Amino acid sequence: MLAFSRVTVIGLGLIGSSIVRAVRQHMPTVRLTAYDADPAVRARVEELGLVDDVTDTPGAAVTDADLVMLCVPVGAIGTTAETIADDLPADAIVSDVGGAKQSVSAALRAALPNNVFVPGHPVAGTEHSGPDAGFATLFHGRWCILTPEEDTPQAAVERVKAFWQALGSDVEIMTPRHHDLVLAVTSHVPHLIAYSIVGTASDLEEVTRGEVIKYSAGGFRDFTRIAASDPTMWRDVFLNNREAVLEILQRLTEDVTALQRAIRWGDGDTLINLFTRTRAIRRSIIEQGQDDERPDFGRAHD
Amino acid sequence: MLAFSRVTVIGLGLIGSSIVRAVRQHMPTVRLTAYDADPAVRARVEELGLVDDVTDTPGAAVTDADLVMLCVPVGAIGTTAETIADDLPADAIVSDVGGAKQSVSAALRAALPNNVFVPGHPVAGTEHSGPDAGFATLFHGRWCILTPEEDTPQAAVERVKAFWQALGSDVEIMTPRHHDLVLAVTSHVPHLIAYSIVGTASDLEEVTRGEVIKYSAGGFRDFTRIAASDPTMWRDVFLNNREAVLEILQRLTEDVTALQRAIRWGDGDTLINLFTRTRAIRRSIIEQGQDDERPDFGRAHD
Repeated sequence: MLAFSRVTVIGLGLIGSSIVRAVRQHMPTVRLTAYDADPAVRARVEELGLVDDVTDTPGAAVTDADLVMLCVPVGAIGTTAETIADDLPADAIVSDVGGAKQSVSAALRAALPNNVFVPGHPVAGTEHSGPDAGFATLFHGRWCILTPEEDTPQAAVERVKAFWQALGSDVEIMTPRHHDLVLAVTSHVPHLIAYSIVGTASDLEEVTRGEVIKYSAGGFRDFTRIAASDPTMWRDVFLNNREAVLEILQRLTEDVTALQRAIRWGDGDTLINLFTRTRAIRRSIIEQGQDDERPDFGRAHD
Repeated sequence: MLAFSRVTVIGLGLIGSSIVRAVRQHMPTVRLTAYDADPAVRARVEELGLVDDVTDTPGAAVTDADLVMLCVPVGAIGTTAETIADDLPADAIVSDVGGAKQSVSAALRAALPNNVFVPGHPVAGTEHSGPDAGFATLFHGRWCILTPEEDTPQAAVERVKAFWQALGSDVEIMTPRHHDLVLAVTSHVPHLIAYSIVGTASDLEEVTRGEVIKYSAGGFRDFTRIAASDPTMWRDVFLNNREAVLEILQRLTEDVTALQRAIRWGDGDTLINLFTRTRAIRRSIIEQGQDDERPDFGRAHD
């Protein structure tokens, strides 16, 4: 039994194009329709043969859908939802994949007062963008978080949950507010720091950009992967999860200041206590299958 | 023509044990001697058959050497050098692999006033530690920085350079002071931030450690690799490169504060400008062979 039989994906970047590939692989009988605001992306999706139909308007993409997945940056969710409102079947469920859920809920409630929506967020991705970057196994063994409202029909939540499980994900349900705080810690602030440190390194007068690149294997290069992620998507995440990001950033700043002080005063015990504690977390992440246990994530060494 | 024919390595952790493995592979006629302060490490090195001789004292390890590589944490360089001073042949060259070079120069000058030393730093490593973690190709295509004094004999520098080139490294020469600044940017501050963010995430009241681990694929897990590095080694690096680390950290803090302000005031242009700029650096790092171009560093996706 399939949770949905006519799935429409709007926005065919890394996540949207991975979803259609994964649906093809795991639910081959599902009818797939796609729309992207960028004509070049639409053409490329046709060329790659990723879906059954690519439409020229968002409205045309949804007229026959039972699930509509909005895979656009968080800041575009509201306007995108407005463009499909008139053509959306009354029983179609709307979902999304955005990284900030309180603002998505508010935008969907305003734009689609008559439809059931179940916002979601697959915690998976790579630093690459666009329809060529997607792949069917992106969600395997990764968590997808659903953030229904209190009055969202349970049956709709269950169907969206079954959809993600069929793509290979584990599914967790939480409130939009809690999602935004958890993701501020595990994703948003790490990205902000990574972008920032790469920016700082490239602006120094005494160290050239060439030196930063040559000696990046000392640790810096790990930050550059994250800092190569899609700029528009990330701008929208920060502007739409402002409160939680600023709260976690404040906590991090306090902790960095304490380390700064330990270094200045030669307090080696504080340093070694922290550095010992942090090893355990990586061990747990590897044990739970959320990262590669080979050295350097399995990077090639030759 | 080999640069050295009798190489002694003191300290058989990730780097020391990679050096002996790489020497075996690239210079099989070199006689290799090893000493480690930890008897368990000495026993393991014998068991693995990594060298010709494992000695019970540091002095016994160097009596016949023409190159002595000190592969101990930066804070132990001085005391380790003192233990070999009396047994060191007058023409033996001493080098090391420490991550902070001004303090190493000072320590070696004080401990070994009669020997030539050429401090070095291979910018390579993984998050794993100990004699089992090393491998022969660790230095392939990576940079090794040598930081001789102004009065160091050029011939000695050339021999140490040839040694590292034979192990597959590219070699660059710079002053200890410049090295410490460059590495503060490309390695030390990234490590400090990674340790810090992992510490912050595990101390929050509203987000559980289990949640941090489950949703780490959103970016956090990239930081945990670095934050799993050897605690003693890193404590010593921070305490011995205090000035440069604090200077770069101050710059980073200013830049993070500017981003914080941009988020608070909804200044999307500032964010997108930075996020676009940082992509170019990763491209250069990949073009210059310092990282894997496959998505997620080539992590397994299934």
